Amino acid sequence: MVSWKGRRSQRGVPSIQWPRPASRAVPVNRVELGDFTPDLDVYLGQAAYLELSLFEGLGRAAESAPHVRAQRMTARVAGSTLDRHRGLLAEIERTGGDPTVSMEPHRHAVDEFRRRTEGADWHEAILASYVAAGLLNDVFVRLAAGLTADHRERIVRVLEAGDDEAAIVAELSTAIEDDPQLASRLALWGRRLVGDTLLVARAAISASHESADDERLEPVFTELVAAHTRRMDALGLTA
Amino acid sequence: MVSWKGRRSQRGVPSIQWPRPASRAVPVNRVELGDFTPDLDVYLGQAAYLELSLFEGLGRAAESAPHVRAQRMTARVAGSTLDRHRGLLAEIERTGGDPTVSMEPHRHAVDEFRRRTEGADWHEAILASYVAAGLLNDVFVRLAAGLTADHRERIVRVLEAGDDEAAIVAELSTAIEDDPQLASRLALWGRRLVGDTLLVARAAISASHESADDERLEPVFTELVAAHTRRMDALGLTA
Repeated sequence: MVSWKGRRSQRGVPSIQWPRPASRAVPVNRVELGDFTPDLDVYLGQAAYLELSLFEGLGRAAESAPHVRAQRMTARVAGSTLDRHRGLLAEIERTGGDPTVSMEPHRHAVDEFRRRTEGADWHEAILASYVAAGLLNDVFVRLAAGLTADHRERIVRVLEAGDDEAAIVAELSTAIEDDPQLASRLALWGRRLVGDTLLVARAAISASHESADDERLEPVFTELVAAHTRRMDALGLTA
Repeated sequence: MVSWKGRRSQRGVPSIQWPRPASRAVPVNRVELGDFTPDLDVYLGQAAYLELSLFEGLGRAAESAPHVRAQRMTARVAGSTLDRHRGLLAEIERTGGDPTVSMEPHRHAVDEFRRRTEGADWHEAILASYVAAGLLNDVFVRLAAGLTADHRERIVRVLEAGDDEAAIVAELSTAIEDDPQLASRLALWGRRLVGDTLLVARAAISASHESADDERLEPVFTELVAAHTRRMDALGLTA
C-alpha cells in the first residue's frame, strides 16, 4: 500500500514526495471529503491547473495516435477536459479571482506529475489520462462537499460533464485485443500511474487546514483504489 | 516568390511539394475562391483535420510555455481551435458523413506540415499557430464562397468564432520586448512558416475539380501574403 504520510507545505500548496506505487483494495461505502476541503481559491486553482495539464497531455497524445479514429477520440477527450478547465476558470473569475494567480502555486507539483505520467506512446498516454482523470475528478467531487451549496453545485456539474470513459475503454480494448503483449505493459504502467495519481490526490486533500494524517482518510483511499481497480477491470487489465 | 505549380493528385486529395519559402506583397481587393471550392466532404475533411492538427500543436506548445499566463493564453487558443474542429465535425455529421473517413485522406500531408512547423520552443510554436491559423482560416472562409448558402453560413460562423489574435500578439510582443534577439529568430521562422502554410493553402485550393494552375489565383495569394505581412507587422516583425 502507498504511504499517505506526505509532507504538508505551509500555505496550502501541495508538496509531493514520490514513493513507489502499489494498489488493489475492496470497495466500501462512499466517503465524502467535506472536512478536508481546502479554501475555495486553492481548490479551484489546483483543479483548474490539473485539468489544464491533462488537456495538454491529451493534445500531445493525439499527435501519436495510431490512426485517425483514435486521434479523433483523443481530441474528443481533450475537448471535455478543456471544458472542465474552462468551467473551473469561469468559477475562479466569478469569485473575483485571477486564474493565473490561482493556478501558479500548483504548477511545480502538477508539472512533475505530468512528466512522470507522460507515457511512451499513445496507449500509455491515453491510459494515463483515463486513470488520472477518473481518480482525480472523483477526489475533487468528494472535496466539493465542503464548499458552499452555490459553488458546489456549479463545480460538480462542471466536473461530471462529458464522460468519455466508455469511448476510451472501447478504443483501448480494441488495441489490447490486437496486441496481447500490450496488456502486460499497460497493467504495469497502470500500477505506476495509480501510485503517482494517489499522491496528487493526497496533496489536494492535505491542502486543507484540517490535519490530513487522519485515519478518517483511509476508507477514502480504499474507495479511490477500488474505483481505479474497476476502471482497469473494464480494460481487462489487472490493477 | 513561392512557386504555385504544385502537383495535383487524382482524387481531390492534396499532394504537397515543399520548395523554399519567400514572401512580401502588396494588398489588393479581396478575391473569393468560390470557383475553386472542392467537394463539401473534401473541404470539411481537410479543414477539420487542419484544425485538429493545429489544436494538437497548441497542446504541445502549452506544455513548454514560459509561465502560467502564457500557458493559459495558449490553452485558450487551443480551446477555440478545438471548437472550430468540433464545429466542422458536426457539419460532417450533419451531411451524413463519417468524420474519421473524411479526415483520413488529409492525414499524411497535414501531419507533414505539422512536423515542419512544430517549432523549437513555445515562441516558435505559438507563432506557427498564429501564422497558420490566420492564413488557413482565411483560405477556408474564401473557399466557402462556393458552398451552398446553408453550409456556407454555418461553416463561416464556425471558422470566424473565437478570435485570439490580439491575445497572441500581446503575449508574443511582450516576449520580444524582453528579449530583442527573439525578433530576428522569429522573423526568420515566420518566413519559413508562411512558405509551408501557403503550400497547404495551395493544396486546399487545388483539391477542387477546377484547374488551379489558373492565373486567377495569383491575386488571391498576393492577398494572403499581404494579410500575413500585416500579422507579422502586428508583432513588430519583418515578414
